[in-house]
Amino acid sequence: METIADIGRNARTGGYRRDAWSSADLELREWFRGAAAARRLDLDEDRNGNLWAWWGSPTVPGVVTGSHLDSVRDGGAFDGPLGVVSAFQAVDALRARGFRPARPLGIVCFTDEEGARFGVPCVGSRLLTGVMPAERARGLTDDDGNRLEEVLAAQGRSPAALGRDEETLGRIGMFVELHVEQGRALAVPVGVASAIWPHGRWRLDFRGRADHAGTTALSDRDDPMPAYASAVLRARELAERLGVLATFGKVRVEPGNANAIPSLVAAWLDARGPEEAKVRRLVDELTQDTDVICESWTPEVAFDVPLRDRLAGLLGAPVLPTGAGHDAGILASAGVPSAMIFVRNPTGVSHSPAEFAEPADCEAGVAALATVLEDLCRA
Amino acid sequence: METIADIGRNARTGGYRRDAWSSADLELREWFRGAAAARRLDLDEDRNGNLWAWWGSPTVPGVVTGSHLDSVRDGGAFDGPLGVVSAFQAVDALRARGFRPARPLGIVCFTDEEGARFGVPCVGSRLLTGVMPAERARGLTDDDGNRLEEVLAAQGRSPAALGRDEETLGRIGMFVELHVEQGRALAVPVGVASAIWPHGRWRLDFRGRADHAGTTALSDRDDPMPAYASAVLRARELAERLGVLATFGKVRVEPGNANAIPSLVAAWLDARGPEEAKVRRLVDELTQDTDVICESWTPEVAFDVPLRDRLAGLLGAPVLPTGAGHDAGILASAGVPSAMIFVRNPTGVSHSPAEFAEPADCEAGVAALATVLEDLCRA
Repeated sequence: METIADIGRNARTGGYRRDAWSSADLELREWFRGAAAARRLDLDEDRNGNLWAWWGSPTVPGVVTGSHLDSVRDGGAFDGPLGVVSAFQAVDALRARGFRPARPLGIVCFTDEEGARFGVPCVGSRLLTGVMPAERARGLTDDDGNRLEEVLAAQGRSPAALGRDEETLGRIGMFVELHVEQGRALAVPVGVASAIWPHGRWRLDFRGRADHAGTTALSDRDDPMPAYASAVLRARELAERLGVLATFGKVRVEPGNANAIPSLVAAWLDARGPEEAKVRRLVDELTQDTDVICESWTPEVAFDVPLRDRLAGLLGAPVLPTGAGHDAGILASAGVPSAMIFVRNPTGVSHSPAEFAEPADCEAGVAALATVLEDLCRA
Repeated sequence: METIADIGRNARTGGYRRDAWSSADLELREWFRGAAAARRLDLDEDRNGNLWAWWGSPTVPGVVTGSHLDSVRDGGAFDGPLGVVSAFQAVDALRARGFRPARPLGIVCFTDEEGARFGVPCVGSRLLTGVMPAERARGLTDDDGNRLEEVLAAQGRSPAALGRDEETLGRIGMFVELHVEQGRALAVPVGVASAIWPHGRWRLDFRGRADHAGTTALSDRDDPMPAYASAVLRARELAERLGVLATFGKVRVEPGNANAIPSLVAAWLDARGPEEAKVRRLVDELTQDTDVICESWTPEVAFDVPLRDRLAGLLGAPVLPTGAGHDAGILASAGVPSAMIFVRNPTGVSHSPAEFAEPADCEAGVAALATVLEDLCRA
């Protein structure tokens, strides 16, 4: 973790800005290649930009672990990198004890898990599995108007090659992602995931008419800001009533002048909960009178029960659900037997510079992952 | 107006983005120099970046007209440029009828009237008059973190030279600014300003703690967005009750991830009204529990009464107040006899791509300005 601690760190906030395909992300990708080379693992980049480091040739389906290296904006050090770093450390631990895997063992770094730049999370795993059409990915646009296909082409990648990748998918016999837990749900060092709540992201467009803030009578205004404000308060009220989560974390105001009434307030609603029907009800009630685009929706993902039970048994660890989306959830929904190991988060803070896990818990996570990989690669 | 119609125009919105010292602004400044040269007017740029075109050497205080060429973001074609273009046209009209001014006649283009980029309006006239300290101007920062002093230095200007400029001020015997009216207060082609409402801009910082949108229980959240939303609704309510105007037209959310609870909602409040005490009351009530910075405050400006009456008499025009700030207001508050001529706005829309004035009304404006300049320059 220390060797990448300075990459993409914002000096003012102390948080990380590791947007997909930014210079920080490219530096992290180079670090991944270096970590693989140092361990004599075979490196491969698939057609969707995901990186793979193999111990043993993946001519038959292997056991894969890993996570992602990109971050939300001003995110913490653990969300993503902990799973990749722990994967390399687990390989080191297995080698130190002389273990030789009977099946290929892969470490993956999925591309653009957070969606901080192009708005859609888990782009790498969604493309790999075909959950997201390549055409949609190519047209994703960042806040500066750059299309993903242009960004990829500028990095020497082939946007035309994006899309479901049977060859790479065929190499993943099962997938185990280690991740820092993101609430305060875990009272012991490690746990095993049961399910990912249904969750989605919607863009709500509140439209009005731009006008002069100093000369337009209140009665002459078509100001979308009060409508947005009402939606924020209503979302909180509905979330409490329905037992779900609702968040407005991103807002764009046009034209964005302090002295002009807005023509548009575009606001992103993140909504999740244990029950799909209740999440849907919140979104429906909030968007009755508003232009809305669903940017992403992931139904509940229940992880593979035999694999989950095998991990929980091996580790003597509790089983718990999470509200956070992960590449493991995308793979699971595409039929890959998948599981997650969570490392305790003492404060519950995540997606924040203050995100933290105790070093001893991180070491327990590595040990747990090594135990699991050893078991899964034995036969 | 047609020769500058394409400069800084946003193809998507149809509005103008003519930030101070942007390439669009530099192009407009070049246009001003060309328009002055074509009329054999003497061009001068003062220490604060304002441009002056003189008919007759300003060795004694002259009569000055003009306005600004920068725009709010996605602003209209008229706010600013109409006053500059009409000034050149009025000079043409005076020359066509063989008039020779007995006093120097100047046309000014004030720099950065809108404050779209650095957040403070009327920077050129505030610096010229010393209303704004040079030190504060040098440290103004745009959204990309560029300081005004760096931007000026990059354009070959001398940031050290900013500040109150007695020599230039001494050349302004009086100032008449023509401007499109910005509400629906004018039922005839031209009017004369009585006063500018007291107005100001405040930045409110609603602070919370960044956290994961999918894993943080509602009860564990410190989310500043609902507090901001409540302030928006309360502002509207107070504005209606107090008979003032309040607008939130610019918002910045940090970290700005759709899947993260914000750590900060920074929101800019624009408040104005006919009575200072009521504007103050609204701001005080809204900001009781919030970090607030006053970015600008301009008390009521009553324009010079003899000059106002002279213009109203010459033009047979009605006299009306406005809620919009102008460089003429800054000069008036600094003791320069100043006046404004308004051109009718049929829809009342301003600071918007839809801003409009009828060509016949614009021509009436030029004729009125020529009449006024002829009268003021006769003796």
